[in-house]
Amino acid sequence: MATGLPREQAMEEASGEFAFIDWLRRNTPPHPSVSLGPGDDAAALRLSAHSECLVTTDMLLDGVCFRLEEVGPRQVGRKAMAVNMSDIAAMAGRPVAAFVSVALPRSGGKALAPELYLGFRDVTDDFGTAIAGGDTNSWDGPLAISVTLLGEATGNGPVHRSGAKPGDWILVTGELGGSIAGKHLTFTPRVREALHLHSVADLHAMIDVSDGLSADLNHICVESGCGAVLHSESIPISKAANGMNDQKSPLEHALTDGEDFELVFASPPDHARALIEKQPIPGITLVHRGEFVDRGLWLATAGRRVPLLPRGYTHELC
Amino acid sequence: MATGLPREQAMEEASGEFAFIDWLRRNTPPHPSVSLGPGDDAAALRLSAHSECLVTTDMLLDGVCFRLEEVGPRQVGRKAMAVNMSDIAAMAGRPVAAFVSVALPRSGGKALAPELYLGFRDVTDDFGTAIAGGDTNSWDGPLAISVTLLGEATGNGPVHRSGAKPGDWILVTGELGGSIAGKHLTFTPRVREALHLHSVADLHAMIDVSDGLSADLNHICVESGCGAVLHSESIPISKAANGMNDQKSPLEHALTDGEDFELVFASPPDHARALIEKQPIPGITLVHRGEFVDRGLWLATAGRRVPLLPRGYTHELC
Repeated sequence: MATGLPREQAMEEASGEFAFIDWLRRNTPPHPSVSLGPGDDAAALRLSAHSECLVTTDMLLDGVCFRLEEVGPRQVGRKAMAVNMSDIAAMAGRPVAAFVSVALPRSGGKALAPELYLGFRDVTDDFGTAIAGGDTNSWDGPLAISVTLLGEATGNGPVHRSGAKPGDWILVTGELGGSIAGKHLTFTPRVREALHLHSVADLHAMIDVSDGLSADLNHICVESGCGAVLHSESIPISKAANGMNDQKSPLEHALTDGEDFELVFASPPDHARALIEKQPIPGITLVHRGEFVDRGLWLATAGRRVPLLPRGYTHELC
Repeated sequence: MATGLPREQAMEEASGEFAFIDWLRRNTPPHPSVSLGPGDDAAALRLSAHSECLVTTDMLLDGVCFRLEEVGPRQVGRKAMAVNMSDIAAMAGRPVAAFVSVALPRSGGKALAPELYLGFRDVTDDFGTAIAGGDTNSWDGPLAISVTLLGEATGNGPVHRSGAKPGDWILVTGELGGSIAGKHLTFTPRVREALHLHSVADLHAMIDVSDGLSADLNHICVESGCGAVLHSESIPISKAANGMNDQKSPLEHALTDGEDFELVFASPPDHARALIEKQPIPGITLVHRGEFVDRGLWLATAGRRVPLLPRGYTHELC
């Protein structure tokens, strides 16, 4: 098992919050950045003295972001942690410590807690990240999970959404579309890739594809005060998008499906050209997918531009 | 209104996550520690270079921690933020930035969001703390709120639960018991008091009274590997505890009721004596309430000790 915890131990009974905190403490390895872990009023972290502290938080709800019955608690825990890792990746940050709060359904919730935790650990162990605190409750509602992840910017600073400039090239770390077929649960957040790219090239802006390529590229455009053109022949269409067999074309899937969690970024042309020439990341082919322009969002096919709607998954309040 | 936001503006329609984030951005003042606020993949904070970063998180659930129908969203938002502030106070930390995630019930949830936010702001504004990010969702479940609060330790470091030594005196920042009559919603977290105490005296250990005096004092004892004696005649019994009129005596209420959010702390005798002589905090009378001993938890009355059970509110997983 990825976490190195025997399943029997993981499934050990935890009869109340304090018992669960004891269980967490026994099963949580020490971490050099965590000077005080679970069990006090707050955790204490030692972060790099001269870096910005990055913080992201995502709440995942049964019936909205996942179906517990279909995917099981370990996959749910894995995803809840991975989506937060992807946000830190999108800032080109190093993840340091996670804080996990769960509302467990009263019926059967006790058995969920250790499985969720193992799912969290599947991801945090992969990135040397601590689970340094949290809160566990049970109630009459469905499963709700809130993860807050702290990271550190590198010496090159965090990469915001707002720095794209007209002329920058658009690059993507992988193929897009059809993540619903499985990748939305199994993806590995692009933390290492982002750190490596940030160390070898100027990244003017970056975002992870959670809402859909057109929608997320539009977020960069709005924040940067510019526009963008995507070249339809160079959109990275995944096998899953090709296999969807529904009303949408594979290209539409690649442009509008959410939750691929690849990174889309803006690099000045000379840096982008060097990346494409050197291909510094094994397993990923960096290609010129388009470029930022003064205004508008466009799809270009054989040199002809048509407006591209920033369609994608919309988070609705009601 | 404490936040300085006109209610009309606060109640303005927010039709989706992006609209709500826009609303947050318009209504969230800049903060010197927040270099990047809501609206990017993560927030970025500039923390003091040589302090430990303190992190606490609490999830509050409708029907478990509050009854939305009875207290209304603004009080709920206020409490969700205040309990986290109290945890930072218990470390003698400075609160810096809060991250708030909410799961809104699909029916009527839209109207809750701005009221919850005003409740958060009632507390954060009081302590110069930023709301630097969060996540807003709606679902078919009841209201769930997760707040994660980051703080900084002072130059004297954070105060853990684990540092009490036999001989240390026990002091408390206020009166206890009967918080259910109102204080559990209206309390002001003891952030300023803790910072001041930490600057003028050695604090070996500290905790906030969330579970009940006997239970929380026991947490210090367990973490510190020692025991404690409380003097029954010097237990600070609140007016609310005296007015409860149920089977429990006022003393029992003061010893076992939760959610007073006063601080209980251990100071070496010379420092404790100086605090009691100088009474450095207007409105709070510091008194010698007992002392830490080698082992056991005791209540002493006229010099005679009886065992004290660490009773209080128990967080149940199921």
